[in-house]
Amino acid sequence: MLSKTGRYIFTAEPFHCDFRGRLMLGHLGNHLLNAAEYHSDERGYGISYLNTQRLTWVLSRLAIELREQPKAYDKIVVETWVESVMRFFTSRNFAITSPDGLVYGYGRSVWAMIDTGTRQPADIMKVGGGIITGYIEDSKQCPIAAPLRVRTTPSAAPERSFEAQYSDVDINGHVNSVKYIDHILDLWGMDWHMENAVSRLDIAYMAESHCGDRLSLSRGKEDDGSYSVSVKKSVNGGAESVEVCKSRVKFAKI
Amino acid sequence: MLSKTGRYIFTAEPFHCDFRGRLMLGHLGNHLLNAAEYHSDERGYGISYLNTQRLTWVLSRLAIELREQPKAYDKIVVETWVESVMRFFTSRNFAITSPDGLVYGYGRSVWAMIDTGTRQPADIMKVGGGIITGYIEDSKQCPIAAPLRVRTTPSAAPERSFEAQYSDVDINGHVNSVKYIDHILDLWGMDWHMENAVSRLDIAYMAESHCGDRLSLSRGKEDDGSYSVSVKKSVNGGAESVEVCKSRVKFAKI
Repeated sequence: MLSKTGRYIFTAEPFHCDFRGRLMLGHLGNHLLNAAEYHSDERGYGISYLNTQRLTWVLSRLAIELREQPKAYDKIVVETWVESVMRFFTSRNFAITSPDGLVYGYGRSVWAMIDTGTRQPADIMKVGGGIITGYIEDSKQCPIAAPLRVRTTPSAAPERSFEAQYSDVDINGHVNSVKYIDHILDLWGMDWHMENAVSRLDIAYMAESHCGDRLSLSRGKEDDGSYSVSVKKSVNGGAESVEVCKSRVKFAKI
Repeated sequence: MLSKTGRYIFTAEPFHCDFRGRLMLGHLGNHLLNAAEYHSDERGYGISYLNTQRLTWVLSRLAIELREQPKAYDKIVVETWVESVMRFFTSRNFAITSPDGLVYGYGRSVWAMIDTGTRQPADIMKVGGGIITGYIEDSKQCPIAAPLRVRTTPSAAPERSFEAQYSDVDINGHVNSVKYIDHILDLWGMDWHMENAVSRLDIAYMAESHCGDRLSLSRGKEDDGSYSVSVKKSVNGGAESVEVCKSRVKFAKI
């Protein structure tokens, strides 16, 4: 039987880095998703197997907390493990370090399993006779707070609106979970990113969006100095909107 | 002395794949840029050294020809070598294969060296006493045509226009060369990409664009069935536009 924790090595590729030579958060987030998928796939419940059962994993919540951003060329070790499993949800943690143990940060995530036909929740325990429960690692610590239940300010007017494109869509056929993070961080300009780095980002996914959907982003400042961002998609020909995801972003001065 | 050809292994990460489970061309292009940078860096003329000399590499032309698209989880071997060097330009080739030699495709590129202060061409031969010339590999074949001198139809009206964002900008501080490929392929919708894959893409870069620049894309169909795309940026408050890059895209039915 494989170990409970998976360990995957990525590189902060120079062309995945921003103008400060630091790995962009979207690319780091993508490494976390990829590590999660490798870990699941190797243990018999990855997307390619699930798809044969008309099932897939969908990210429900994600929190990333960073002490330091990897620099161009740095090797990044992503450890990931399943902390708990319930019928419709599982929580998975991440530790992000250098090969010699320098901590870049940690991540926490909650995933749902859904039926790819109905898009409704599916019973995780029915996959391979509940195989995932054999891999629960409850002795390993993840020293960051659980993903926030993000509240957003309902009155904030959209600051940016655009149509989701082909390049936003991933292997699941809907807008990639991490692409929303790119779009959210794009609300701040170069001057801001020159002087501020994300210290923690929480994001909760409520609905899927697809290529051609019109997305709009609104932003509010919270009492603790962090920002909340709501991403909505237009429905009914623009007459109404549905919240697709909401995020809380905390920056630290560089 | 290091070998003339560099060999770098990447993975078609599942979350870098489109809804057909095939590595997106933008991510493949980024692997080529990263392989080029590793190869240069190891041999003493990479961006991090050049930046200390107020110099950098800028991609001038790129052609990618694909026989097959890597699938999710596939390992991808990118071999890259310098074919020729002139005072202001160098041409670099790529072979893209599986570890056991299945050919996915090939790439050809032309790079200029520029002064990061003046953005003017700089003499490649002055770096490390012309060190790059010791690595010219003129015996290795790259069996695809040289990057096209792309002509675009000047009258085509823009189909899409947007502001370049923080996530478009890379370690060089301007819009990432490969991000233009994402934006270009976004001109086609999901239905098209479901039935057509890029068999060859040529792109020529004429000017830099930056975060906040308004970019517009226009597209024309050519006599041979391929498409030409022109990317322009607005200047003088929108009164004029400058061509940033132009591309020719050939698709094959899947």
